[in-house]
Amino acid sequence: MEQLHVKHEHGSYTVSIGSGLRHTISEHLPKSYRQVFIITDSNVAPLYMDDVKQSFPETTVVTTYVVPAGEESKSLSVFYDCHTKAIEYGVDRQSSIVALGGGVIGDLAGYVAASYMRGVDYVQVPTTLLAHDSSVGGKVAINHALGKNLIGHFYQPVAVIYDTASLNTLSKTEWRSGMAEVIKHAWIAHDQAFLDQCYSIDHFEDVDKDLLNSLILQGIAVKARIVTEDEREQGNRRFLNFGHTLAHAIEAEMGYGEITHGEAVAIGMDFALKVSESYFDCSLNRMNFRNWIMAHGYPISVINHLDQHELLHRMTRDKKNVNSEIRMVLLSKQGNPQVVSFTKDEIRNELKEYHKEVSQV
Amino acid sequence: MEQLHVKHEHGSYTVSIGSGLRHTISEHLPKSYRQVFIITDSNVAPLYMDDVKQSFPETTVVTTYVVPAGEESKSLSVFYDCHTKAIEYGVDRQSSIVALGGGVIGDLAGYVAASYMRGVDYVQVPTTLLAHDSSVGGKVAINHALGKNLIGHFYQPVAVIYDTASLNTLSKTEWRSGMAEVIKHAWIAHDQAFLDQCYSIDHFEDVDKDLLNSLILQGIAVKARIVTEDEREQGNRRFLNFGHTLAHAIEAEMGYGEITHGEAVAIGMDFALKVSESYFDCSLNRMNFRNWIMAHGYPISVINHLDQHELLHRMTRDKKNVNSEIRMVLLSKQGNPQVVSFTKDEIRNELKEYHKEVSQV
Repeated sequence: MEQLHVKHEHGSYTVSIGSGLRHTISEHLPKSYRQVFIITDSNVAPLYMDDVKQSFPETTVVTTYVVPAGEESKSLSVFYDCHTKAIEYGVDRQSSIVALGGGVIGDLAGYVAASYMRGVDYVQVPTTLLAHDSSVGGKVAINHALGKNLIGHFYQPVAVIYDTASLNTLSKTEWRSGMAEVIKHAWIAHDQAFLDQCYSIDHFEDVDKDLLNSLILQGIAVKARIVTEDEREQGNRRFLNFGHTLAHAIEAEMGYGEITHGEAVAIGMDFALKVSESYFDCSLNRMNFRNWIMAHGYPISVINHLDQHELLHRMTRDKKNVNSEIRMVLLSKQGNPQVVSFTKDEIRNELKEYHKEVSQV
Repeated sequence: MEQLHVKHEHGSYTVSIGSGLRHTISEHLPKSYRQVFIITDSNVAPLYMDDVKQSFPETTVVTTYVVPAGEESKSLSVFYDCHTKAIEYGVDRQSSIVALGGGVIGDLAGYVAASYMRGVDYVQVPTTLLAHDSSVGGKVAINHALGKNLIGHFYQPVAVIYDTASLNTLSKTEWRSGMAEVIKHAWIAHDQAFLDQCYSIDHFEDVDKDLLNSLILQGIAVKARIVTEDEREQGNRRFLNFGHTLAHAIEAEMGYGEITHGEAVAIGMDFALKVSESYFDCSLNRMNFRNWIMAHGYPISVINHLDQHELLHRMTRDKKNVNSEIRMVLLSKQGNPQVVSFTKDEIRNELKEYHKEVSQV
């Protein structure tokens, strides 16, 4: 088992990473709770719910709520249902919520914890590769019909417990989604070896366990370092949004759940690399990245079927924007992210060129 | 103009109190904003919206949203509508929300600010006497069908700007509601003169302006001191819930809006004083208080018409409870609040006795 520590303004928490940790959840918590309320989804429940329940001592009351799997559960109505269950089960300020699942569950259950009785403890127990990213850093949110993650908070977990054995059950799509955030961490990490390790994988599902663990650890370390420096996204934390400006627009435009978050981020990074090369007049060897995303089946061609005007409109609504400019994270070289502001017209042109480029692939 | 300062873990803010301050809002803010988004209700809008809008310089974009007056607006659907408007108006992280109104607007708009894009600045501009209390301290929330304020956060305003001239338009009921929190502050303040000042008022509507200003200032000072010491209700802040355990149950049981918050708190304090006298075997001269609430028309007789079993059940759900005990704030003497835990049975008996006592009034 490996451990990383994340500091924040109210204290700190530990990220524990290892195979089989779901069987010993309570051992990795900073304190014991009279009640834990596990929120998970309909995909994860049959796989891991029993293990996690049984990991708590008999003196702990364990209550559970299973929401439908999928991005649609990051809705106001599912959020409200979670509150209803928590009230009915008598969850109180001395209880803890356990977010057992991928990014959707982490965001949803984390926001329930942030808002239930003005805040109760919660624990992230990620079960996907993508959640190596989302489970660390305390960003919790649900979606608004007009934009992803628009209703939320910065609210830190008391622990992140990452059972890497749960990755054995991931689908091809989930591998793709998760690896996109891993390679994003490599891009902003100023570490060519990390990026090369990502490029070295032929098939995600067959990745060598040691290599995978090493990638996860490096990815979480990048994330943990940045969020420790900047809990509330006022400085360097914005670099973590590399690829996300276009990604959020794609996800919203396609309808949540039609494309995975990581798949959209991969396309967003491809676009951000293109804009970076032209803005900084530099080379990022972006064709290596393009080849990688093509080889692994990232659905880049969706860009051909989306209305550019609508994408642009959605990009202007990003949370990171100020004064109607569009802010993108660009790289002047690997490991050198910068936030750059563009006018709507500038991004319109970039999108047009990118669309042309992709349609010729 | 008087000013008080409240410290919290991220910084501090100023409470400005004076007649006519609504005309100079922007002068009392810690910084200027490109956009302010005013949330108010249908009662307050015709009275003060124009004044507040005009108080901002022409360079500030002022957008507004008017919600229906009343506790029903602390609902998930109105909360969502506020988000929708904010998105449509392009409110961003460099904007500020202005909560113009009473406690409902402060709680609602404050929680919108806490959750919009994971948090934007907000300013409390209270217009009622009751809001002298709720506008200070950063408790923001909306209601769940199963309980008041169950969905919310601790989220501090950047300023509180209290125009005491807005009290000229209060109704009799609003005076009653507000004075209950004033006298609550007197009860927990260890200051007999403050309590005597409250008792000295014959008719709330005709109260001497200087006396009123003095009471408001003393009330806010008590609140500001306590929330500075304990932002997140882990210690002394719980004392501010004197009278609130039963009050929340009464409000929920009657249906929000059927009785004002302060009216319910007055009854809750009456009950808490009774329990205090029997628990500590002391005298709090509670008949003076009873006479005061009767003289001012607090609707104490509602207790005769409410189902005691349901009240009790609702009291077990209070946010301050831990491990199914019912926690009440009691006084061993004026200015000496303490949190005491009771079993459900104990409170059942106390409620029964109280019911008997009130039915003989």
